[in-house]
Amino acid sequence: MKLGFVSAILPELSLPEVARFAAEAGYTCVELMCWPVSKADRRYAGVTHVDVTNFTRAQADHVREVLAEAGVELSGLGYYPNPLTPDRDEAQKCIKHLQKVIRAAPLLGCDRVNTFIGRDWTKSVDDNWPQFRKVWKPLIGLAEQQGVKIGIENCPMSFTRDEWPGGKNLATSPAIWRRMFHDIPSANFGLNFDPSHFVWQQMDYLKPLREFRERLFHVHAKDVRIDRHRLDDVGILATPLEYHVPKLPGLGDVDWGRLFSVLGDTGYDGPVCVEVEDRAFEGSLASRQAALHQSATYLRNFVAG
Amino acid sequence: MKLGFVSAILPELSLPEVARFAAEAGYTCVELMCWPVSKADRRYAGVTHVDVTNFTRAQADHVREVLAEAGVELSGLGYYPNPLTPDRDEAQKCIKHLQKVIRAAPLLGCDRVNTFIGRDWTKSVDDNWPQFRKVWKPLIGLAEQQGVKIGIENCPMSFTRDEWPGGKNLATSPAIWRRMFHDIPSANFGLNFDPSHFVWQQMDYLKPLREFRERLFHVHAKDVRIDRHRLDDVGILATPLEYHVPKLPGLGDVDWGRLFSVLGDTGYDGPVCVEVEDRAFEGSLASRQAALHQSATYLRNFVAG
Amino acid sequence: MKLGFVSAILPELSLPEVARFAAEAGYTCVELMCWPVSKADRRYAGVTHVDVTNFTRAQADHVREVLAEAGVELSGLGYYPNPLTPDRDEAQKCIKHLQKVIRAAPLLGCDRVNTFIGRDWTKSVDDNWPQFRKVWKPLIGLAEQQGVKIGIENCPMSFTRDEWPGGKNLATSPAIWRRMFHDIPSANFGLNFDPSHFVWQQMDYLKPLREFRERLFHVHAKDVRIDRHRLDDVGILATPLEYHVPKLPGLGDVDWGRLFSVLGDTGYDGPVCVEVEDRAFEGSLASRQAALHQSATYLRNFVAG
Amino acid sequence: MKLGFVSAILPELSLPEVARFAAEAGYTCVELMCWPVSKADRRYAGVTHVDVTNFTRAQADHVREVLAEAGVELSGLGYYPNPLTPDRDEAQKCIKHLQKVIRAAPLLGCDRVNTFIGRDWTKSVDDNWPQFRKVWKPLIGLAEQQGVKIGIENCPMSFTRDEWPGGKNLATSPAIWRRMFHDIPSANFGLNFDPSHFVWQQMDYLKPLREFRERLFHVHAKDVRIDRHRLDDVGILATPLEYHVPKLPGLGDVDWGRLFSVLGDTGYDGPVCVEVEDRAFEGSLASRQAALHQSATYLRNFVAG
Amino acid sequence: MKLGFVSAILPELSLPEVARFAAEAGYTCVELMCWPVSKADRRYAGVTHVDVTNFTRAQADHVREVLAEAGVELSGLGYYPNPLTPDRDEAQKCIKHLQKVIRAAPLLGCDRVNTFIGRDWTKSVDDNWPQFRKVWKPLIGLAEQQGVKIGIENCPMSFTRDEWPGGKNLATSPAIWRRMFHDIPSANFGLNFDPSHFVWQQMDYLKPLREFRERLFHVHAKDVRIDRHRLDDVGILATPLEYHVPKLPGLGDVDWGRLFSVLGDTGYDGPVCVEVEDRAFEGSLASRQAALHQSATYLRNFVAG
Amino acid sequence: MKLGFVSAILPELSLPEVARFAAEAGYTCVELMCWPVSKADRRYAGVTHVDVTNFTRAQADHVREVLAEAGVELSGLGYYPNPLTPDRDEAQKCIKHLQKVIRAAPLLGCDRVNTFIGRDWTKSVDDNWPQFRKVWKPLIGLAEQQGVKIGIENCPMSFTRDEWPGGKNLATSPAIWRRMFHDIPSANFGLNFDPSHFVWQQMDYLKPLREFRERLFHVHAKDVRIDRHRLDDVGILATPLEYHVPKLPGLGDVDWGRLFSVLGDTGYDGPVCVEVEDRAFEGSLASRQAALHQSATYLRNFVAG
Repeated sequence: MKLGFVSAILPELSLPEVARFAAEAGYTCVELMCWPVSKADRRYAGVTHVDVTNFTRAQADHVREVLAEAGVELSGLGYYPNPLTPDRDEAQKCIKHLQKVIRAAPLLGCDRVNTFIGRDWTKSVDDNWPQFRKVWKPLIGLAEQQGVKIGIENCPMSFTRDEWPGGKNLATSPAIWRRMFHDIPSANFGLNFDPSHFVWQQMDYLKPLREFRERLFHVHAKDVRIDRHRLDDVGILATPLEYHVPKLPGLGDVDWGRLFSVLGDTGYDGPVCVEVEDRAFEGSLASRQAALHQSATYLRNFVAG
Repeated sequence: MKLGFVSAILPELSLPEVARFAAEAGYTCVELMCWPVSKADRRYAGVTHVDVTNFTRAQADHVREVLAEAGVELSGLGYYPNPLTPDRDEAQKCIKHLQKVIRAAPLLGCDRVNTFIGRDWTKSVDDNWPQFRKVWKPLIGLAEQQGVKIGIENCPMSFTRDEWPGGKNLATSPAIWRRMFHDIPSANFGLNFDPSHFVWQQMDYLKPLREFRERLFHVHAKDVRIDRHRLDDVGILATPLEYHVPKLPGLGDVDWGRLFSVLGDTGYDGPVCVEVEDRAFEGSLASRQAALHQSATYLRNFVAG
Repeated sequence: MKLGFVSAILPELSLPEVARFAAEAGYTCVELMCWPVSKADRRYAGVTHVDVTNFTRAQADHVREVLAEAGVELSGLGYYPNPLTPDRDEAQKCIKHLQKVIRAAPLLGCDRVNTFIGRDWTKSVDDNWPQFRKVWKPLIGLAEQQGVKIGIENCPMSFTRDEWPGGKNLATSPAIWRRMFHDIPSANFGLNFDPSHFVWQQMDYLKPLREFRERLFHVHAKDVRIDRHRLDDVGILATPLEYHVPKLPGLGDVDWGRLFSVLGDTGYDGPVCVEVEDRAFEGSLASRQAALHQSATYLRNFVAG
Repeated sequence: MKLGFVSAILPELSLPEVARFAAEAGYTCVELMCWPVSKADRRYAGVTHVDVTNFTRAQADHVREVLAEAGVELSGLGYYPNPLTPDRDEAQKCIKHLQKVIRAAPLLGCDRVNTFIGRDWTKSVDDNWPQFRKVWKPLIGLAEQQGVKIGIENCPMSFTRDEWPGGKNLATSPAIWRRMFHDIPSANFGLNFDPSHFVWQQMDYLKPLREFRERLFHVHAKDVRIDRHRLDDVGILATPLEYHVPKLPGLGDVDWGRLFSVLGDTGYDGPVCVEVEDRAFEGSLASRQAALHQSATYLRNFVAG
Repeated sequence: MKLGFVSAILPELSLPEVARFAAEAGYTCVELMCWPVSKADRRYAGVTHVDVTNFTRAQADHVREVLAEAGVELSGLGYYPNPLTPDRDEAQKCIKHLQKVIRAAPLLGCDRVNTFIGRDWTKSVDDNWPQFRKVWKPLIGLAEQQGVKIGIENCPMSFTRDEWPGGKNLATSPAIWRRMFHDIPSANFGLNFDPSHFVWQQMDYLKPLREFRERLFHVHAKDVRIDRHRLDDVGILATPLEYHVPKLPGLGDVDWGRLFSVLGDTGYDGPVCVEVEDRAFEGSLASRQAALHQSATYLRNFVAG
Repeated sequence: MKLGFVSAILPELSLPEVARFAAEAGYTCVELMCWPVSKADRRYAGVTHVDVTNFTRAQADHVREVLAEAGVELSGLGYYPNPLTPDRDEAQKCIKHLQKVIRAAPLLGCDRVNTFIGRDWTKSVDDNWPQFRKVWKPLIGLAEQQGVKIGIENCPMSFTRDEWPGGKNLATSPAIWRRMFHDIPSANFGLNFDPSHFVWQQMDYLKPLREFRERLFHVHAKDVRIDRHRLDDVGILATPLEYHVPKLPGLGDVDWGRLFSVLGDTGYDGPVCVEVEDRAFEGSLASRQAALHQSATYLRNFVAG
């Protein structure tokens, strides 16, 4: 496996700076953020380390050079919008930009794009389903044509009152994954697996690794800590951030030794990218970089360097 | 404490039959259902063992005689509608009938009425709050005037897609209880505590017994079993009946010895009524009666006879 | 479900005495032992409460009268030999007698016969398989013809050096059950499920209840306690009785509330028979009867009376 | 085993009333309190159901008749003073009275006397040891001569500030028992084993049953519940009642199924006497009697009737 | 947070040697021992890396230079005597020297002094309280005047018979901390938090981090292992070293990931100093230095470098 | 302790290459494989980094130089055949070669040889015992004479059908160790302790460290993961590889912090050699080397560098 990180945590660094930092901190790959250039509408969104809007082969070659110079690989392109948002204009913009990201990948010599399914958060899973099929069949078709694997992150995007009740991403559970992969049966449609979301959903994050081994395209290394005293007070019907906290790997409830143990046995040999969303490390660029240093130290216990 | 059961499980028995069965099966009290006479719109609802619609002292005296003859006490009157349903006509009917139940209690020599707060299930807790205050201040005022304690059951009334996303009862957690009792500060406003709902909400059901000891008016003895293999598949974002099953006391995840241990230490000395909602025992009247026999045998291990 | 016991524990009592004791102790059924009349060659074997050797309708009617008089049902006939023993003469005797037991059942108005598959304990499962198919296809054929369900107990019959290494019964695990039921696909071929053997095999005894719900013909209620200090010293490669002890229900590691909880949900409504093999209660007839009294008291917490 | 209770909980009942109640409540034996007639100086002390001060054969015969009439056996005589108290006059009085209890036992056809070793609570175990040897050698000598087994209860007698720091009974742990039995090596010197004191001392209460099986003369069935929220706040250096609560069997942290499982395997066949010290049941004679009813119901799951 | 160690473990090294070793081993700060120059009266005491007896600005500047040269910060000054010892002359000497340490801190550009409250170990907490108030009010007053934060370590100083029964430091639990901070309400009075002492006191070491977040001035990283087989034998009434062992971080029962997870969330950003008291590493200077190397490697998994 | 690895995992590297790699990867010792030069008959067997067949002092000096040059120590010589195999010719060859390994050790300045007892896997432990005594008395005699300590690895050599039922090494449990050391009472007869085999045998791997502290000559660091879903299906009567997987340290069920904690307390100060048998890392030399890098990183958290 290859250890990397998600570039969203270093928005003030340029691409060459990100690449150099990755190499110095002992990472061998990086997932580069490809949001359209604009103001972010939520934390960790809106970062643009590769601007794919009018992407040329020259620009692509430049990115490849920068990474090659630093000795760091591209684990995948990342863009995590809500293509099923009820605002259909907004949804259309997301879809268009996602198409550009998919087309940019092969120019960069990369076959992985990571994103969300999206969801109309005011509706049930069933009621979102027709729109899911309508939007995603052509997207996966495009990915097949471009030789790109789409890794859907299993984040419910449901943390506070703003996303209540349904969250902004359908792909939250093995039960739903089965339905997705059944309805759009493509070998280019898979997962960007993040164990932390299974923790607060009270689910086993090891079991699905076996069933979905063929679908594991990318892995995010994020941790969460469930705070029992809060959960005892508000219960699972509260919004999730009322009782759990995103943390760096090793500071939460994920058993990373066991995770990498089963992951290795499934034959997974792709990127594992640290995703920093730990508020205790958000104070400054320096502390976010310290977070990446510490995460590399910790994960090197389980991922061969 | 006094062991009883909720009469909703024996809809085909008349009040005298219910009372006699209770005595024979070793129960010393019973919570009698007071739905308006009509067709039930959900399971366990719509049962009428005391019809309070035009309740007279004579009717009340008759009920008292029937119970006295069988040697069984009345633990409380039960009516569990949704007084905050968005259909305001329907809500008004519920409120009116609830007022009748509250007025009937003193005629029966009983000071406990059990019910739900209700909820517009399409809205968040906050968005329900103004209506909660508007509806419940006068209801609690009436209860005070009648010398009646209102025990709100802590059931989220959120089990399947029909109640998605919010469920039909606001009173689901200690955090919300605090808010309720703060906004309507009356000694007649309390709880009909059911530990089973805390289990599937992943909460500690012992801790609140201490904090809310003054609010414990009535207790329901129901159990639930969480099925890990299902929860692992669908997660807590699924509707609750997708991963847990209501069961008789002793057949689920509640630790009854510990529950009664702490309950006794708080000084609680009121009724504990078995609420049967175990589908494995729903096949016939005989099997529902067997369920009540078995529950009495089990709970007598922890409740002095 | 119906609570009963296995008659092998009361060898000195006659059938009418067994039946009367069952009724007095609160049991509603009994599994009657049908060994050929002879000297037992192991503990709990060789008991004959119904002698099927030359079984006549008159004898059958007498048994039925005796049980009817006591008000006790017949849960099944029990005969647990080793039909795959390497001594082929001995094996042939077992098979012949088992055929008689199968033929006796319908005369007794009973459709359940409980037994073992048997095993050549010096050979692996695979090396026993051809003989299994050869012996059992005709036996199950006979059972189908007689309208009898064969309940195979999942006891490994491997406790001490005498049965080392393979034990005397193949039907030890879900993996092997699947193979058995695949190779002899008959609705009359099923299980006499005993959770205690799963405990010392370090297996989940709840999971198979769901997968094999159609195969549950009979249930034995026996418990075992694993002694950690012994297991720590000898490990699982020792013979099983070096680190675990058969016990009465409630005195071992089976979680009976959970067992009956899942069993009820599968729809199982047949007999549950206590099998006493607890040496702490073997000193005298009186203490074995006390064991049955205590077991009934304990299990009534979970099985409706 | 024989189920009984400690008579100290029923001080207002006369001996015949105690015996009759025992029989009605399903107990088959009783441990009778033999304090000198006087005012009690602590809860549960000072009760006199048999006054041994000037005990005659006639008195003894009367006690035996009363018990025989009720059909209840005498499990042992109980007197729990502090024979090592630093007030040497007081100690002498205790020793003298204990001698009378020992001499009374054979007159009652009983060979068990239960008591404490005592302790000067201001001194360490080592500093108490010389006095222990001096006081107890002759006492055990007397017991041998009278054919009486002395069962020392393993209660630390250390609950509140009054007994700080050392408590009033040395016999608190297997390490100390070994030392006691080594220094006074008599087959008449053993234990009145109470598992509850091991729980709050954070010790395994099953392990010693095996090592000290020859020393088990009598068993007390009391339970305790450790309250984690209190222990987290004050730690084990606080006095024990700051973080744990004595409870009825089944309402605390003792696993009674496992206790009786191992106890039975050791061959123990003597009395098991419920000791009620649960404040939730102390309000009245009726509630203490209810406590004994409930305890019998619970323990009958594990002790054959 | 800044990773450091307590200099007491390197008594044979001079201050410049300590500083250089710290830097080489990857530590960024160090807590320097300030005992009066003399013979130590217990292990880990009596070490003098900064002699504050007649401390001059020149001496202070020298210390600052030495540390600056090595690139290591001063986490705090450490002096851990018993200012409440019953020998009042001895106590007076401790207090006097502690005043010198407090006055030395600002000269060193350091605002943290770590110490013990002390205790007359023959008396209860309550009986120590008047002396606590008398001694500590002026000490905290001095600290306020000097701008120094006093971090009281929560070590009970109760390990063997010598400190029986009360130990030599009152500040053992949150319950006592509340009382301390209530009676001397100063923002300069806080904690040098060591999780290991909570482990053997059977307490939750995470809960207090939240309540006392404003009081966290300094953190010690020490681990302990509870040995169940010993605890089972002697119980919590034994002296603590009879059943637990101080160990390096990662070799005991503290969950360091969780500790740093919650510590980070409280906003703590101060020093975390390894305190080596693991006898398995005490054989030589080399092995104590190896212990510090290993601890740094381990803790870097959780503390950003 | 000294961190090393077992050279069997690098069969394609020459001795100097092995030594250099060890040093580069941060290891300070290595266990060198001494199989006779031939084709391996099982995985991880048959590797020859030191050929002892006709071993001369010159050859020995060359090995010592190579190791000294790389700065790596020799932890021991390893040869793991089956000296009790029922094929007596084969057994004789094993014994002869083992004698050569024992004689080679002192020439290499090394006093440790690691091996297996062996076993006729078709026979019980008891039936192997006479041959064990016959073969091993002289071998241990030779070891004594050569000043060599024989470390027997506690591997059952029982993983698949090929070794069914008994495995190929008797030394599997503390119970058997006691018997071995009792029958051949030599201070040169001890253990090469590997905790992983205790895990799948469901045994405590810490307890024996205390009892057998004098017998700990060498330690292997290998991990295993038990797969519950497989164990639930096949049970412990299946062959072990049907339900467990050998893994790198940190990727299995061994608690390494606790292992090294207790190991350190026993005074063990010898080699700890990583044994790589993790199929997820077997694809290439590079991935096996990556496995050794990762294992060193992980174990350095617990073993001082």
